[in-house]
Amino acid sequence: MQKKEFDLLALGEILLRLSPPDNERIVRGDAFQKQVGGAELNVASGVSLLGLRSGIISRIPDTSIGIFAKNKIRFSGVSDDYLVYDTGRDARLGVYYYENGAYPRKPGVVYDRQHSSMTRITADEFPKEIYEAARCFHTSGITLALSGLCRKTGVEMIKRFKEHGTLISFDVNFRGNLWTGEEARECIEGILPYVDIFFCSEDTARLTFGKEGDVKTIMKSFARDYPISVIASTQRTVHSPKVHSFTSVIYDAGKDRYYEEKPYKNIEVVDRIGSGDAYVSGVLYGLLSENGDCEKALKYGNASSAVKNTIPGDMPSLTRTEIQDIIDDHENTGYHSEMKR
Amino acid sequence: MQKKEFDLLALGEILLRLSPPDNERIVRGDAFQKQVGGAELNVASGVSLLGLRSGIISRIPDTSIGIFAKNKIRFSGVSDDYLVYDTGRDARLGVYYYENGAYPRKPGVVYDRQHSSMTRITADEFPKEIYEAARCFHTSGITLALSGLCRKTGVEMIKRFKEHGTLISFDVNFRGNLWTGEEARECIEGILPYVDIFFCSEDTARLTFGKEGDVKTIMKSFARDYPISVIASTQRTVHSPKVHSFTSVIYDAGKDRYYEEKPYKNIEVVDRIGSGDAYVSGVLYGLLSENGDCEKALKYGNASSAVKNTIPGDMPSLTRTEIQDIIDDHENTGYHSEMKR
Amino acid sequence: MQKKEFDLLALGEILLRLSPPDNERIVRGDAFQKQVGGAELNVASGVSLLGLRSGIISRIPDTSIGIFAKNKIRFSGVSDDYLVYDTGRDARLGVYYYENGAYPRKPGVVYDRQHSSMTRITADEFPKEIYEAARCFHTSGITLALSGLCRKTGVEMIKRFKEHGTLISFDVNFRGNLWTGEEARECIEGILPYVDIFFCSEDTARLTFGKEGDVKTIMKSFARDYPISVIASTQRTVHSPKVHSFTSVIYDAGKDRYYEEKPYKNIEVVDRIGSGDAYVSGVLYGLLSENGDCEKALKYGNASSAVKNTIPGDMPSLTRTEIQDIIDDHENTGYHSEMKR
Amino acid sequence: MQKKEFDLLALGEILLRLSPPDNERIVRGDAFQKQVGGAELNVASGVSLLGLRSGIISRIPDTSIGIFAKNKIRFSGVSDDYLVYDTGRDARLGVYYYENGAYPRKPGVVYDRQHSSMTRITADEFPKEIYEAARCFHTSGITLALSGLCRKTGVEMIKRFKEHGTLISFDVNFRGNLWTGEEARECIEGILPYVDIFFCSEDTARLTFGKEGDVKTIMKSFARDYPISVIASTQRTVHSPKVHSFTSVIYDAGKDRYYEEKPYKNIEVVDRIGSGDAYVSGVLYGLLSENGDCEKALKYGNASSAVKNTIPGDMPSLTRTEIQDIIDDHENTGYHSEMKR
Amino acid sequence: MQKKEFDLLALGEILLRLSPPDNERIVRGDAFQKQVGGAELNVASGVSLLGLRSGIISRIPDTSIGIFAKNKIRFSGVSDDYLVYDTGRDARLGVYYYENGAYPRKPGVVYDRQHSSMTRITADEFPKEIYEAARCFHTSGITLALSGLCRKTGVEMIKRFKEHGTLISFDVNFRGNLWTGEEARECIEGILPYVDIFFCSEDTARLTFGKEGDVKTIMKSFARDYPISVIASTQRTVHSPKVHSFTSVIYDAGKDRYYEEKPYKNIEVVDRIGSGDAYVSGVLYGLLSENGDCEKALKYGNASSAVKNTIPGDMPSLTRTEIQDIIDDHENTGYHSEMKR
Amino acid sequence: MQKKEFDLLALGEILLRLSPPDNERIVRGDAFQKQVGGAELNVASGVSLLGLRSGIISRIPDTSIGIFAKNKIRFSGVSDDYLVYDTGRDARLGVYYYENGAYPRKPGVVYDRQHSSMTRITADEFPKEIYEAARCFHTSGITLALSGLCRKTGVEMIKRFKEHGTLISFDVNFRGNLWTGEEARECIEGILPYVDIFFCSEDTARLTFGKEGDVKTIMKSFARDYPISVIASTQRTVHSPKVHSFTSVIYDAGKDRYYEEKPYKNIEVVDRIGSGDAYVSGVLYGLLSENGDCEKALKYGNASSAVKNTIPGDMPSLTRTEIQDIIDDHENTGYHSEMKR
Repeated sequence: MQKKEFDLLALGEILLRLSPPDNERIVRGDAFQKQVGGAELNVASGVSLLGLRSGIISRIPDTSIGIFAKNKIRFSGVSDDYLVYDTGRDARLGVYYYENGAYPRKPGVVYDRQHSSMTRITADEFPKEIYEAARCFHTSGITLALSGLCRKTGVEMIKRFKEHGTLISFDVNFRGNLWTGEEARECIEGILPYVDIFFCSEDTARLTFGKEGDVKTIMKSFARDYPISVIASTQRTVHSPKVHSFTSVIYDAGKDRYYEEKPYKNIEVVDRIGSGDAYVSGVLYGLLSENGDCEKALKYGNASSAVKNTIPGDMPSLTRTEIQDIIDDHENTGYHSEMKR
Repeated sequence: MQKKEFDLLALGEILLRLSPPDNERIVRGDAFQKQVGGAELNVASGVSLLGLRSGIISRIPDTSIGIFAKNKIRFSGVSDDYLVYDTGRDARLGVYYYENGAYPRKPGVVYDRQHSSMTRITADEFPKEIYEAARCFHTSGITLALSGLCRKTGVEMIKRFKEHGTLISFDVNFRGNLWTGEEARECIEGILPYVDIFFCSEDTARLTFGKEGDVKTIMKSFARDYPISVIASTQRTVHSPKVHSFTSVIYDAGKDRYYEEKPYKNIEVVDRIGSGDAYVSGVLYGLLSENGDCEKALKYGNASSAVKNTIPGDMPSLTRTEIQDIIDDHENTGYHSEMKR
Repeated sequence: MQKKEFDLLALGEILLRLSPPDNERIVRGDAFQKQVGGAELNVASGVSLLGLRSGIISRIPDTSIGIFAKNKIRFSGVSDDYLVYDTGRDARLGVYYYENGAYPRKPGVVYDRQHSSMTRITADEFPKEIYEAARCFHTSGITLALSGLCRKTGVEMIKRFKEHGTLISFDVNFRGNLWTGEEARECIEGILPYVDIFFCSEDTARLTFGKEGDVKTIMKSFARDYPISVIASTQRTVHSPKVHSFTSVIYDAGKDRYYEEKPYKNIEVVDRIGSGDAYVSGVLYGLLSENGDCEKALKYGNASSAVKNTIPGDMPSLTRTEIQDIIDDHENTGYHSEMKR
Repeated sequence: MQKKEFDLLALGEILLRLSPPDNERIVRGDAFQKQVGGAELNVASGVSLLGLRSGIISRIPDTSIGIFAKNKIRFSGVSDDYLVYDTGRDARLGVYYYENGAYPRKPGVVYDRQHSSMTRITADEFPKEIYEAARCFHTSGITLALSGLCRKTGVEMIKRFKEHGTLISFDVNFRGNLWTGEEARECIEGILPYVDIFFCSEDTARLTFGKEGDVKTIMKSFARDYPISVIASTQRTVHSPKVHSFTSVIYDAGKDRYYEEKPYKNIEVVDRIGSGDAYVSGVLYGLLSENGDCEKALKYGNASSAVKNTIPGDMPSLTRTEIQDIIDDHENTGYHSEMKR
Repeated sequence: MQKKEFDLLALGEILLRLSPPDNERIVRGDAFQKQVGGAELNVASGVSLLGLRSGIISRIPDTSIGIFAKNKIRFSGVSDDYLVYDTGRDARLGVYYYENGAYPRKPGVVYDRQHSSMTRITADEFPKEIYEAARCFHTSGITLALSGLCRKTGVEMIKRFKEHGTLISFDVNFRGNLWTGEEARECIEGILPYVDIFFCSEDTARLTFGKEGDVKTIMKSFARDYPISVIASTQRTVHSPKVHSFTSVIYDAGKDRYYEEKPYKNIEVVDRIGSGDAYVSGVLYGLLSENGDCEKALKYGNASSAVKNTIPGDMPSLTRTEIQDIIDDHENTGYHSEMKR
Repeated sequence: MQKKEFDLLALGEILLRLSPPDNERIVRGDAFQKQVGGAELNVASGVSLLGLRSGIISRIPDTSIGIFAKNKIRFSGVSDDYLVYDTGRDARLGVYYYENGAYPRKPGVVYDRQHSSMTRITADEFPKEIYEAARCFHTSGITLALSGLCRKTGVEMIKRFKEHGTLISFDVNFRGNLWTGEEARECIEGILPYVDIFFCSEDTARLTFGKEGDVKTIMKSFARDYPISVIASTQRTVHSPKVHSFTSVIYDAGKDRYYEEKPYKNIEVVDRIGSGDAYVSGVLYGLLSENGDCEKALKYGNASSAVKNTIPGDMPSLTRTEIQDIIDDHENTGYHSEMKR
């Protein structure tokens, strides 16, 4: 494969995330932690932390809030080359408010993302060279659901990246507060013919795509209907807001083979937001750096997701070496050091 | 029942609560979280959050600390109409210092509540109209134990509210550092003839009132000796400072029937202070809003208490809708969403 | 004048204000202070702190952010009886981001207030009794500029309150980022026939209303053209972001008399936002509590504004006694104690 | 002079100080800075920081708040050998709440120091050896005003230390909220026959002791009436809560000579509490370490006080070297480095 | 045994510890908690908190960082009489950065302790009287591994303290990043002839000293080869970074008897750093205060270590009374109060 | 001039900066703000913020502290392409501790930068392409003073960049704690033949280079002795730690012309560290973006430096637009808006 500037370019909205400290509630207190996130940005950041070059394609306001987002994107190791700045009077960065849970109180999210600068994105704002610049292009159903222009831009980019031989990665990431299942199904079925790597949870497959049977049957059925190479599905068990278990299944359509491993059990959850995106980043890292090896993708994906739960904020924060240590500990049943000194 | 201005008026001391952040110790560090609490205020706040109108009857200093307390009371949704301000040279708000525990370290409280403005409260300071203003009057054994004047005022208010057709709610809330079991028993037996809704833990019933038998036998014996309509008793299991389980039993004397439900297991405790008061608030809300339905009272009480453990500070912070969701999740054995979006 | 439930009702948008601590910049750092403000809310809060009863008429989202705003409104002493909750999918509270300045860096504001729940307010959402409930109604040009519905509601409320014998107070508060000078002039000239108390800066009078001459000439010309009783105009000198001087002029049209006093010089500015609103609140307090005495209104207004600059956040935080002490110190040229013990 | 264990022992109450951060008000916010202070402790700490051995004589509760005070006393370099622990049910540490000012808002203090463990101190609780242990004993009018037992203990200790050849230092420190001027005058005149080093402000000398004439006349009149060796009087000018100027006058009665120096002008005040005590500590350090040289005492006193204003909390925090650098800069009119590297 | 000034003197390096708050990562965020620690200091502090007199022998820079360390040492109840100040140009306090873990992320430490002032310590810097001043001298393998001068000083002090009848306590505390197992073995075997109380983990005994058999066999073999009186070995089970269990075994060589107790199970770990040192402090306290009673030493050691895990920072923070309560709760199978009021 | 990848590459050490919040002292408190700085990094960041592409050449440890530095460098807009990671056992990032001043307390710095990874840098670690990559190369006397290897690398890079037609910028930045004036003079005189843009303060010119006469005479003398094109010298007046004034003089040797402007007076200093580096960044930006126009360089330099004083941390934080606004305000004597809305 020819050398490209980026291993991954991702298209998605960047949000300002505001959360009260610790277990405080949104309705009280005097302070918010300020962070930046977004499903596709989280993926790009995870891939970058593991050692590949990634960038985010997005549209942000030309205000100090937009610059804050840009600074944080750079901090997270992601290129800001394809950020477009909105200088309009109604330029804004979407905001979401997040508070942690503790059993029996669930975590909660309040979205204020409508009318954001991203919702007015168009493909014309980006130079044609972008389609030559990446080995892989990733976006998610959230982007497609944000606005008509987002959907149009997302679909167009998928097609044009594909034309230039770029791998297309797509995460369904269904959000019932952005569109209906029916809208989602119709739109996504239109792009599946272009998708190489497909992330879809079992629940969504059933509820949105009307799939039946166990998770493996479902995966195979997607691969039968569309020219998808790799399908991945997470398996999360939420024991309580502070304790989860996690693993996943990956299906390699070419080899007609499933990959699984024992779950990370009783993860000590600090912040579960973005753990699904961290999974995607691990899988993509594995596929892109290990020549499509689904077994390695599975391990990187599961470890990246499990450990993201222990890190505050949307974005992951682990190096390649640290992830490898976690994989080794997970597989190793013998002596474990208790601490990294 | 005729329409009154308040659904609940509660008489009790308001304390400034100071606690080190997280798991820091009182003997170290540079900062205290500053909050306001008090058993009866916590009850009034819980009732208000669920949607009824409540107010607190108390006496606070006419200083900026008193105004802070007033502001926080309003913030928590409780009326400050019946706060009396102490302008004396020795006016003070009682203080308590609280630190969290973690097994094997227990949580700890240091009280500095003597000589507070509340200890010099008298019934004369309040207008007669107060006795017409509420459907229910609540106080607890803490108020009766604070000082001679508090006891006199508490007893007088119980009687006068009762005369005006107000439901009387009383929580024993025995505190060995305020009075002896013998003093408590004698005083409380004097007011039980006026009490309609009675909260008493099994331990206190045995140790202070000399009751014997299981919790149901004890409850019935109270109802036999006094004209109490509803008796409630919490059942808390402390697995560790950070893990509790909780449920309760309510006895409806008129129907001679007990109400119980399965416990909230392995609550992820953030701050257990005020969870007993949250229970009272849930039960009173249920009784007052659902026409005395003890089954609903039980559910609101248990859910309110369970969830209070997850919230920092003395006072609860959940809306009617949020509590209903928790009750539904507790009863529902099927699919639960992991997060509120 | 007959007794009404509120001394003041104010119509205006409530905003979530987010600011980095101290002199940090918006584009960096990990935390925002979270506060609530809004020109008319700030006025209502100031009037309440000084001892009158006030309420805010507004429209906020039915989310935890809306509840936070409601809690803070109550905390600040303002009634939440006339808050309407927006349960729509696009419900949102407007946000603004504020950072402090230090010479030669100016303070800065980024607004994200478009599409807020307030912009869809209508007079129909409020009960008719509201027009009987207040001695004085206050709003500002910001409200009129927010949206077509806001303008319609504002104008309608001004007229209907006026019909019910309510004093009408109006602050021009011109904001070039919300409407043009021409739009402002046209709209405001339509309501001036209803206004009793009028706040307009000298700059705005010249630039927007095309007035000429010195500030006193300008004031008299407004009183000549419209049946306004009291006109007030602030005189602020900005030496640097951390040092201002402040005084004002008030014109009593009935007596054809001007009121002035020496400025508060070299105010140590902590947070200048809301100091104009604090001025309005002091003037209204003076007029409403002192039977229209403009001299007292001037003193309360100047002191309230001067001291607001020393308090973080939008809203003032001083009691009647504290303001009186500041007025006394300002007038008194003899011995001043250095500290309040 | 024979070698003693301590250069200075001071008798005084230790208070928990709680203050909102920066310019926040006591009536709002979620946090207090927690610190420990007290006039005599501040003096002992200042003397210790400059290099002499000091200890505090006091009575504190045997609770975690008392241990916090003890830990902070040790942190500040002061010996805790003569702390007596109150194990009674009503044991408490006095509290005071402090908020900063900014012109035109003055700083404010709310005291909650009544009924503290200190108010029940008696001389019997301390071993006789204490009277042999120090070169100098210091206390202030605050201690004498706290309670009858405090006054009795203070007077007895002054006499017994004097009998053992200890220098007696006394700071009038008049506080109108603790006793009247008449009570103060009567009590203090009773101890002046024992005092060697006397701190009294010009205002207090006039108002409380009925002195007349300029500050030098007043000082000489004290020295004429009582066998006082050194009299010191501070000269503070409060330009605003954030800008003070400071100097002082010292009278050496033996030499009949006055010592003065140019003021520290436009001190950038961060926290003015304890700056008077820092002055006393500097003077005592000068006298004790420089064989009674009043000129050096003046310089150390003025520098210590000036610089204390720049340090948060009650207690000073500068080393001997740092104070010397400040004195050198103050006297030196030539080149000053801008920073200590 | 004759009365000595100190019960314990410990020789060891003092480090500045910097840690991000809560579960934040070192690579992000804007703040570090600043604390002071060091294996031997932690021991000295634990012994002091329980009621004995202890001091630390160390070498720190004569800078404000050194003074910070000194202040914290005094705060923790440890004497600073034997701190030597390094005034050299290259004076520095070693630093270490610590971040908490959460499964599957392990806690991590980054050391920056090379070239510290401590590495240039010599025995000549201390007065001879030091060797008469303590009942017990403690140091650890860390000190011996820091530098050639540290090793020389450590060995010399062990020998000279021993000559003066001081009990010698030694904790192997093997750190592979400071020296090799072979270096450690050789050096430590040289000092074991002088050691009275020996702390060595089972793992280290096997890997470094080549011991075989179970822990009891290993202990006895040490006692056979060297004149050691007491050997202690901790038994920690790390279930996850936030959940540990802990107990230990002590061997009394004179009585040829082993002491054990049931583990503290499922400790809620807040900060595990220093829990091993807290164990040593508890054992030494037990031996020194209870006349060498190993059973009491075991209980104090286990309780001190278990509870240290719940306290932020390196150093323990519990009083004698609090430890006794924890021991009582651990042994008592009946009714436990949930909270200390 | 041909297009190069970077407008500026700077060689210099990166330091971890730790400072207590606000006016707290290093010797107390529980927290440090953590930031990253370094004279040349500050310059690179300033140039990048204004809109040019810059990178830093440095050597940092391969630890989480090194990654933190890398993340912050990216956050500040500077390329990390030429960071070399030190994987050695003794890898470390230099640290410095900074505390703010307030008159009469000066700000203070404690350095702990010896033995850092940077001190072992060699030119061999960087690819040859680096010398083609930039239009301008900048370093300072600090780099030359850090170690023998740093000096060797610095000198070699200056020569090799020069050979490739790169403009050489050099800031003397004399630090007496790193080398003597004599060492500095000798070394710097060796590189001046290669320097195009030279920054040297008047004091340093006199004390280190033995220059005489006024600042203009001095500048011309440098230009006479060496082929320097532009010489700049700052003129700072320190009224107090919180109030400075600032301007500068630039000499254009080719035109034999001096550029000056009126000072920024009474700057409200928040953090003066890095304001000299911000000056360099403004001048370099002006020269590089405006084709060597010294008048524009002067304006950008003065404005960048003045405003840096108002921003916490080492690094500047202003955009091109914001700097232009400050320049406009500085030059404009008419109406100024008070706030940026």
